[in-house]
Amino acid sequence: MENTDLRLASAQRLDAQDDLAGYRNEFVFAESDLVYMDGNSLGRLPRRVLKRIQAALESEWGRGLIRSWNTDWYEAPVRVGETVAPLIGASAGQVVVSDSTSINLFKLVMAALALREDRTVIVTDELNFPSDLYVLQGCARLLGERHHLHRVPSLDGITIDQQALLDAIDERTALVTLSHVTFKSGFLHDAAAVTERAHQAGALVLWDLSHSVGAVPVELDRWGADLAVGCTYKYLNAGPGSPAFLYVRRDLQEEASSPIWGWFGHRAPFAFDPNYDPPSGITRFLVGSPCILAALALEAALKPLLDAGIARVHEKAMRLTSYLIELADAVLAPFGFEVASPRDPMRRGAHVSLRHEDAYRINRALIEEMNVLPDFREPDNIRLGLSPLYTSYTDVWKGIDRIRQVVSEKRFERYTNDRLPVT
Amino acid sequence: MENTDLRLASAQRLDAQDDLAGYRNEFVFAESDLVYMDGNSLGRLPRRVLKRIQAALESEWGRGLIRSWNTDWYEAPVRVGETVAPLIGASAGQVVVSDSTSINLFKLVMAALALREDRTVIVTDELNFPSDLYVLQGCARLLGERHHLHRVPSLDGITIDQQALLDAIDERTALVTLSHVTFKSGFLHDAAAVTERAHQAGALVLWDLSHSVGAVPVELDRWGADLAVGCTYKYLNAGPGSPAFLYVRRDLQEEASSPIWGWFGHRAPFAFDPNYDPPSGITRFLVGSPCILAALALEAALKPLLDAGIARVHEKAMRLTSYLIELADAVLAPFGFEVASPRDPMRRGAHVSLRHEDAYRINRALIEEMNVLPDFREPDNIRLGLSPLYTSYTDVWKGIDRIRQVVSEKRFERYTNDRLPVT
Repeated sequence: MENTDLRLASAQRLDAQDDLAGYRNEFVFAESDLVYMDGNSLGRLPRRVLKRIQAALESEWGRGLIRSWNTDWYEAPVRVGETVAPLIGASAGQVVVSDSTSINLFKLVMAALALREDRTVIVTDELNFPSDLYVLQGCARLLGERHHLHRVPSLDGITIDQQALLDAIDERTALVTLSHVTFKSGFLHDAAAVTERAHQAGALVLWDLSHSVGAVPVELDRWGADLAVGCTYKYLNAGPGSPAFLYVRRDLQEEASSPIWGWFGHRAPFAFDPNYDPPSGITRFLVGSPCILAALALEAALKPLLDAGIARVHEKAMRLTSYLIELADAVLAPFGFEVASPRDPMRRGAHVSLRHEDAYRINRALIEEMNVLPDFREPDNIRLGLSPLYTSYTDVWKGIDRIRQVVSEKRFERYTNDRLPVT
Repeated sequence: MENTDLRLASAQRLDAQDDLAGYRNEFVFAESDLVYMDGNSLGRLPRRVLKRIQAALESEWGRGLIRSWNTDWYEAPVRVGETVAPLIGASAGQVVVSDSTSINLFKLVMAALALREDRTVIVTDELNFPSDLYVLQGCARLLGERHHLHRVPSLDGITIDQQALLDAIDERTALVTLSHVTFKSGFLHDAAAVTERAHQAGALVLWDLSHSVGAVPVELDRWGADLAVGCTYKYLNAGPGSPAFLYVRRDLQEEASSPIWGWFGHRAPFAFDPNYDPPSGITRFLVGSPCILAALALEAALKPLLDAGIARVHEKAMRLTSYLIELADAVLAPFGFEVASPRDPMRRGAHVSLRHEDAYRINRALIEEMNVLPDFREPDNIRLGLSPLYTSYTDVWKGIDRIRQVVSEKRFERYTNDRLPVT
């Protein structure tokens, strides 16, 4: 990378050429000097969410009161689900917004295992998000520990050998479930190939799209995916703990059953029938009253992303992460940093991890002294999220430069390795 | 009731003597003429929620960004749970705010049935909320249809004979689960007696407090209750689809296990341990990322209620509902209305149902023409919720008077019986 232009001016030139740069104005920037590299953990506040929530509070709740359930709210899980759908390549009638990612994962894993009762292997990988593993372990326990959780290993902690993954799927496999983009290294699975192999073997596939939706193209219908879940507070910018979404392929909906039967998943919630009777479509996977304010925030937050289009967002994600990697190689490698994400831009999402033996303390110094907000991930990763709609090349340049300052000036040495509750 | 003073002046006199009248100022009243009798379905917007959400958006999300997880949000499920706790008679460490009522019910029913594996009967009643029945049916299905759901009948559709209920609990009973206040008639169970009988028989007890919390005294610790869930968008005024709460008695927490294992229910969510390892306390019943904005809304919404104190709130609930029943007997009974709630104020919550053969159409007319917002509940109930913090005696008087107008002028006859999606 000896030809990398390391000057700030090069970043500024890239920003000037960036046709998505205008979308930055869609978001709140309360501190101009802050370098925010954590949009993959909590997306920035979209300006239109402020307005939408204000209206929801004052007009819909304050003035409309219970009437707003009829005029706007009751349809929200489906309506907002349909708004998410184009971002994940889903045609109508297959997506709803509800609950949390882990709860939705539980529902769909239980549904999938019931559809493949004669099979006892769940295939996942070592890079999957721990909460997904916990859900799988919990499902296996509920079902009497009949299932074996096969975690395909990662040899480098960064990638999963795709052939090894495909080879792990066979006629004992009930379900293959993976994070489409892995939470730490940002590795991007070849979802079409995995789905095809699973179907050849008669298994179902469930994608966790939390780290890919809004950053890379997702084509559930085209892949032939069976099931998917994802979170909305990362690249979809819907706010802390905003509701998740779930996808069930249309022709599975009739036979798949939610393990949690609630009134919003009933054919006629307000008939107050004493017996559960699910509708034929996707709404059978709803459970209780949906969290309306957060669903409306999501609906508003999606507008800039839908307007920009996922192809351009992905193009910028690849350019931003490549630029970061070039700078890291040139500027940070001499200080002991190592890129812990795939170097092929087609095989990664919109975040990059850098490994360093003092990562935790460097991360603390970046937050406390340098006005940089990265994410630390155990044991030694500084994870840098580059949400394409609002992250500039200048942000990337400044972020790398400030990391350089922390290590070259040994500013991290005054911090301890004692972990804060959330890092 | 021939001595009932039917004049508006009598209502105004009662309001003048009401020492809770000032709490009305805590809430948004966008339409002065509106008679809102649906606070038991969606509580009014508390003014301080507007301010709290504004601050959460602008300062915490917009400015603080991911840092707010450390400073405020991470502890919210526990902190807000502890704020709910005094309203349900729970000492510290037994309540968290999370998910929906139905999801929480699922978690606790599954936990309870696992603790009583040798028993196969679940006792509930015919007046329980249908979503609770669906959850129970779903749990029974997941567990291989081993359980029998025994629904103690209601002879009048209003009350449950307490002796019949106590007699239904025996050594085959795994779990007794009931709505503390029933959703339609407002019948209030004798929770202490039911809990005592269940424990004598070796069964566990789970109370759904959705229609009682914030309206009547709840004393979970004193009753010796095992488990409880409840919703927060009714008398707790936390907004549409706001998160629910759950309670697990301290000395059950170690042996009880959530059926849904997620990272917020892990001992160390940010250690990213690949294996599920629950903490010893109540947080093992959390699952995914909690919906923060809604939890903060709840926290703010609770302040006036905690300040007023549940004893005074309950006192006013009894007076308001008694006043409504007196007026209904005097003014509406001649038009075919029948009180479908308990007449003993100690045996009901803060809502009263009135039965009429044209209830659906009368309800439509009240909404469309009379600026009254009641709730219709199948098949023939007009349900009137009198949330004590902001409902006045004048509201009750006006509500009854406008119902009288609708029936005496036969205004309902222009409406059909075709149901709207939410009513």
